[in-house]
Amino acid sequence: VIPSAPGGQAIPSYLGIDVGGTKLALAVGDAEGRILARRRRPTEPCGRPETDLERIVADGRALLAEVGLAPHEIAAIGVSLPGPLDPVAGVIHNPPNLPGWKEVDVRGPLTRAFGRPVHLENDANAAALAEWRFGAGRGFRHLVYLTMSTGVGGGLVLDGRVYRGAGCQAGEFGHAPVEWEGEPCACGQRGCLEAYVGGAAWTRRLRSVTPGTSRVAALAGGAEHARPEHAVAAAREGDDFARAEVERYVGYLARGIVPIVFGLAPEVVVLGTIPTAMGEDLCFAPLRREVARHAWPLLTERLAIVPAALGGDLPYLAGLAAACEAQA
Amino acid sequence: VIPSAPGGQAIPSYLGIDVGGTKLALAVGDAEGRILARRRRPTEPCGRPETDLERIVADGRALLAEVGLAPHEIAAIGVSLPGPLDPVAGVIHNPPNLPGWKEVDVRGPLTRAFGRPVHLENDANAAALAEWRFGAGRGFRHLVYLTMSTGVGGGLVLDGRVYRGAGCQAGEFGHAPVEWEGEPCACGQRGCLEAYVGGAAWTRRLRSVTPGTSRVAALAGGAEHARPEHAVAAAREGDDFARAEVERYVGYLARGIVPIVFGLAPEVVVLGTIPTAMGEDLCFAPLRREVARHAWPLLTERLAIVPAALGGDLPYLAGLAAACEAQA
Repeated sequence: VIPSAPGGQAIPSYLGIDVGGTKLALAVGDAEGRILARRRRPTEPCGRPETDLERIVADGRALLAEVGLAPHEIAAIGVSLPGPLDPVAGVIHNPPNLPGWKEVDVRGPLTRAFGRPVHLENDANAAALAEWRFGAGRGFRHLVYLTMSTGVGGGLVLDGRVYRGAGCQAGEFGHAPVEWEGEPCACGQRGCLEAYVGGAAWTRRLRSVTPGTSRVAALAGGAEHARPEHAVAAAREGDDFARAEVERYVGYLARGIVPIVFGLAPEVVVLGTIPTAMGEDLCFAPLRREVARHAWPLLTERLAIVPAALGGDLPYLAGLAAACEAQA
Repeated sequence: VIPSAPGGQAIPSYLGIDVGGTKLALAVGDAEGRILARRRRPTEPCGRPETDLERIVADGRALLAEVGLAPHEIAAIGVSLPGPLDPVAGVIHNPPNLPGWKEVDVRGPLTRAFGRPVHLENDANAAALAEWRFGAGRGFRHLVYLTMSTGVGGGLVLDGRVYRGAGCQAGEFGHAPVEWEGEPCACGQRGCLEAYVGGAAWTRRLRSVTPGTSRVAALAGGAEHARPEHAVAAAREGDDFARAEVERYVGYLARGIVPIVFGLAPEVVVLGTIPTAMGEDLCFAPLRREVARHAWPLLTERLAIVPAALGGDLPYLAGLAAACEAQA
């Protein structure tokens, strides 16, 4: 509870800001993940981060005004940003997706504008925290979060706290090798999990291996346009080629998860984006079987492997989860 | 400082007990790892854990008497034990190496005998804590400990605290697959790190692949008696077969370490037993190169990969490190 909160308002509110490479999402909400107001716009970095930050401040002020809150009435501000960044210094280093943002002090301007604590979290950790606080990981003490989007991102909540590691670089499970000296990865290494289960990698593969006569090609309007969703849709229809592709995908996902299970003994593994879209039948049921086949019962019997639950609310809730860390 | 400590004694003392499958080690020492008194004897479990525990209590009392301390004058008691165990309940489940010990309350009898806090830690975690508090991991915030003995054990100190995971089962890096569906492992799975770098596995391999005419066979008194130390000694002499074996060993060690580096971004990886015996030239220098070749500079540039430092003092210090956790 904020001492200075206006009459009757007992629940502290937070301002969450998710700065994505393409979209910017802002939300005012509480520590339970209830969103009071939200807005979204293209990120459109202009090349001068000071100007970008001024626009973000203006958006934040407008959103707070919408719910009738003055800046000093919120408990904290959280910012989810692409890494690498330094949450202690409040500085973002040099994210590939934000041109012109290099060693930018994000916390300073926001603190001056709102007069409240500001916490920065890299987007993967913020998403992990959001699923842990508000989503599929709620109530668990040890959570591993992996999201198979264009690339593969990951975050850890261990012993009920986000684990960031040296230089806040932990959670890069997408680049743990699943095939030693295997497929080349966008990161420059070989055999990374991302090179098998990342959206870009699977898309590239589908375009090279999809038979022109297959259902995948038909759904995509040509094999050269094939994307993971076409393989998933065709597999659901029972297409053999697509089913084999989906099985291969799940097999590599298991290869990425099994070492994490042995090393960290998590209580829950939350998987976002592609696996969530694949669903229980095509992904989670066979994945659990495959993980159980390759890890000890002691580790898998009580392990939950579940889809991410926040869907389109994720960016808003990632910002709010980061805000909650300002006071954690 | 213990309020009730007798005049002049400002530094709290701890009693550490390491219950190994074959040897039992006890030490009285302080939180800096200074050992005031120690003793060691065969574990010799008699089949009745109550009797075994009574003997341990008698040993502890005798050791305390040696340094002139009454039980109530020590700060805490730590017990390092083979897992699986429950440090919260103070109960050891069913360690394969201690016949008759099944769901044994270890904390109860020790608390009653000494009247001080008792903390149980599984041996791998206790060793990790010992290297972190007193040894090669001192001063680091994020430590991964791996020991390549008969099998492969592991422990984690993350954010300056031991990380135990669900059911206290974390740290089983020895069973993360380094070769999917690879060599059979003693644990029943295939391709585990332990199946390549564990002492038993390497011994078995050496006995099957060592040429009878090789230097390894000469040192061992026959290829059928070959052990890792013979391969290491022959490699140091420049023997080609032994060098290839050592390189293979280091290569698999790197395969085990690289995913951990991506996932946890540790500051230090401490390796015990076989790598420590192999030393800088045969193990650590090539291992660092191999890890750096397969992980990002961001993660490896400041990463220390170092030999365990505690040597023969490890059991004593593992017990003391566990004791320090009683108050952590």
